[in-house]
Amino acid sequence: MHIDPAVYVRKAIRSVPDWPKPGVTFRDITPVLQDPRTFRVLIDLFVYRYMRQRLDLVAGVDARGFIVGSVLAYELNLGFVPVRKKGKLPYRTLAEDYTLEYGNAAVEMHTDAVRPGQRVLLIDDLVATGGTMLAASKLLQRLGANVHEAAAIIELPDLGGAQAMRDSGIPVYSVCSFSNSDP
Amino acid sequence: MHIDPAVYVRKAIRSVPDWPKPGVTFRDITPVLQDPRTFRVLIDLFVYRYMRQRLDLVAGVDARGFIVGSVLAYELNLGFVPVRKKGKLPYRTLAEDYTLEYGNAAVEMHTDAVRPGQRVLLIDDLVATGGTMLAASKLLQRLGANVHEAAAIIELPDLGGAQAMRDSGIPVYSVCSFSNSDP
Repeated sequence: MHIDPAVYVRKAIRSVPDWPKPGVTFRDITPVLQDPRTFRVLIDLFVYRYMRQRLDLVAGVDARGFIVGSVLAYELNLGFVPVRKKGKLPYRTLAEDYTLEYGNAAVEMHTDAVRPGQRVLLIDDLVATGGTMLAASKLLQRLGANVHEAAAIIELPDLGGAQAMRDSGIPVYSVCSFSNSDP
Repeated sequence: MHIDPAVYVRKAIRSVPDWPKPGVTFRDITPVLQDPRTFRVLIDLFVYRYMRQRLDLVAGVDARGFIVGSVLAYELNLGFVPVRKKGKLPYRTLAEDYTLEYGNAAVEMHTDAVRPGQRVLLIDDLVATGGTMLAASKLLQRLGANVHEAAAIIELPDLGGAQAMRDSGIPVYSVCSFSNSDP
């Protein structure tokens, strides 16, 4: 029996209606991580995609991006650097603000996390509106990095974030996508 | 040349004085993660320790515990479950409160994250006062898990958390330790 790995992962994602608020369906990856088979298939999708890409670093976005990013870095024998919410990193930092539905937020990195010219893969679990991912990309670029691609498990095309990333010149790869109308 | 892997990891940890407040020295693991060699040595210390321990799951504590916990789960072919700060998990949850220096906090898990009798390794980056780790252990036990051990990169023995864990019957393993008086 042939298994399409992306379909196999997508089927394990749990859709939770009305979370975090009424009318929104949250796509929950915890069942994918919890089953060693789906977890392995998920990670290997990323490993096979990037194993010949001559990357220097994997940058994972706080906090679910840490889960996939760190395994990928280990498997590809690369360093891992965290992109954190503001106020979490103890050393010299650079921050990039972005707009949320209500108010503002910021992502932060250590200024010595990346050396100019390094080829960095940016990874998170989800690209929705793209606010966090775009801010993280800008931060990496301000540190001199070459953002090779932004990767995610899930893309929500109805929210336009992945397209906005592509329009700004950063390729986006996602394992699967969910539309608002998907159950 | 022989390298002691725990010493090799410890030397890469950066001590940041007066963070998050004056008089406190923060032990920063980001340089360990950023260098693929120290990152590999760190992960392999955990892999070698647990590869023959017949574990069922790795539970990583939000957020730095995700970084080591997910790689370890992948390498040992186990599932990974997140222990999160309150309000982050979308499905049915169970919470355990604990006391901080000022005020309270809580950790949360999905109620279906663990099945009764499963042997779980709990992992975080640091055991300081042990508040988070003890609450996470209790949460796992309330879900019926057998907490095999609590693991961390760093133990701060002056703060007593690791000892409190051991006193409550949960073995603790840490790669290295820092005293208040260490530079």
